[in-house]
Amino acid sequence: MTPRLALTCGDPSGVGPELAASWLRELGARHPEVVPVGPASWLRELGAPGVAVGDAAFRATPGKPSREGNAVALAAMRRAAEGCVSGEFAGVVTGPVSKAGLAEVGFAHPGQTEFFAEQWGGEPVMAFAGGRMTVALATWHIPLAEVPRQATPGRITAAVAALDALLSRLGRGRRIGVCGLNPHAGERGLLGSEDEAVVRPTVERLAARGLDVKGPLPGDTAFARHLAGEFDGVVALYHDQGLGPLKTVDFAESANLTLGLRFARTSPDHGTALDLAGTGRADRRSLDSAIRLARLLAR
Amino acid sequence: MTPRLALTCGDPSGVGPELAASWLRELGARHPEVVPVGPASWLRELGAPGVAVGDAAFRATPGKPSREGNAVALAAMRRAAEGCVSGEFAGVVTGPVSKAGLAEVGFAHPGQTEFFAEQWGGEPVMAFAGGRMTVALATWHIPLAEVPRQATPGRITAAVAALDALLSRLGRGRRIGVCGLNPHAGERGLLGSEDEAVVRPTVERLAARGLDVKGPLPGDTAFARHLAGEFDGVVALYHDQGLGPLKTVDFAESANLTLGLRFARTSPDHGTALDLAGTGRADRRSLDSAIRLARLLAR
Repeated sequence: MTPRLALTCGDPSGVGPELAASWLRELGARHPEVVPVGPASWLRELGAPGVAVGDAAFRATPGKPSREGNAVALAAMRRAAEGCVSGEFAGVVTGPVSKAGLAEVGFAHPGQTEFFAEQWGGEPVMAFAGGRMTVALATWHIPLAEVPRQATPGRITAAVAALDALLSRLGRGRRIGVCGLNPHAGERGLLGSEDEAVVRPTVERLAARGLDVKGPLPGDTAFARHLAGEFDGVVALYHDQGLGPLKTVDFAESANLTLGLRFARTSPDHGTALDLAGTGRADRRSLDSAIRLARLLAR
Repeated sequence: MTPRLALTCGDPSGVGPELAASWLRELGARHPEVVPVGPASWLRELGAPGVAVGDAAFRATPGKPSREGNAVALAAMRRAAEGCVSGEFAGVVTGPVSKAGLAEVGFAHPGQTEFFAEQWGGEPVMAFAGGRMTVALATWHIPLAEVPRQATPGRITAAVAALDALLSRLGRGRRIGVCGLNPHAGERGLLGSEDEAVVRPTVERLAARGLDVKGPLPGDTAFARHLAGEFDGVVALYHDQGLGPLKTVDFAESANLTLGLRFARTSPDHGTALDLAGTGRADRRSLDSAIRLARLLAR
């Protein structure tokens, strides 16, 4: 049996519901395992079976966020997470949410990644795939000043292992490049000590375990080398190091993956886009990637 | 009169001499203001007027670096820098050098940028142009751990001012985006304090002085917005933040510019490429951009 996947609405006033509706209209009949989770009014419009959350009378206004809407977004995430634990779902595709809006209704996490990690347990790894590049991050939503001490051997190892498993699922090669922390990967210690003291020995230990991994690579050219085919995926040590190149090249197609947890979780790699909500102009490609990758990971 | 430009050989065993030779053969007659500076044996092969440096008997072997070769590379840089001070040249295009090799012959700078800053005085700004993106850096060859305290209002202001002047020279629009330091530009203080405490007030002061500048922008999407036409150039706060996106998109065409000094200095944005030296396969486009931009900046 194909594992069932929850598809949450995200912020009901953002582009999440209309992108999900577009996907379900086009592909829902062929993929009945994808189950929308959101307000009853949205499910009625979809005319598709799904799981209703929140007040039955709630209706969202596109582009107009509300406290009730954020409560519905959070309820959908909770329902999807619980459905995985109970065996109803094998994974979750999450619609985009407003972190500031969720905070107003009691959400205390930096993002959905951390929420699902808490719900399910496990050490999450944030990764991106679906476009031309496949990238995992060793650290993500922390101040830049904390990156040097948080890019530990444990975090680098978790990111490499998760990326290796992802590449294996994708049926790709598994040659992984690991970025250095400092400019030019520290230029042999001239531009910072961490690349020789932390990154290189970690990469060597992973290579000795049989992984096809190289590094520390200069972070400015690692992604061009990935695109040129030298690596099948790259581990970046921090947020902008990985996502600057990725979002410049793969803006529309890439999806956000949470790896390393008990269940699969993916998400389109864009925000609520309130200015586009209700216009029908939002780009669906990232959601397409997110659903395709969740189906692959949940198998 | 067209200002004369020195074109240094770089490491004589790298790809610098053959790329310069290729340019001079094709375009030298039309641009006699571009004057090669390097070993006598190279100038004889070129059959072009130039300035000889180093031992008259020195001959390089492609792909085989040597102490004498590094001494020649350094002598060419010195000669070019002095020629600017004496009024012989209005700027310099430098060939690629080996920093480790130069260190062996007494060079004590992290790179050519810092060498020319010391020779000429002034506060250098490292920038890149010639491809699809135009990027200036507020900091560059420092350990990542030092970036939060070195990305000061003064460095950000210098980078914005230099980029604004460059865009004006290029005849482009002058809409500048400034990246934030932390992920998502700090998310209003949740992910680090510097973006609200340092970057935002600096950008506001520059905007109040009449510059068309916005920020702090999330560093992961600033470059996609630049490519999409929202900004004419971007200031990155540190090396990999700016050069990761730039080198992923503009690997072949972009040139390295040193702005903010008394004279213009540009360089191809690649290394000595010893494995390609002598094969004729090295890509000349970055040098083409470097010479074109030096001619524009020296005017």
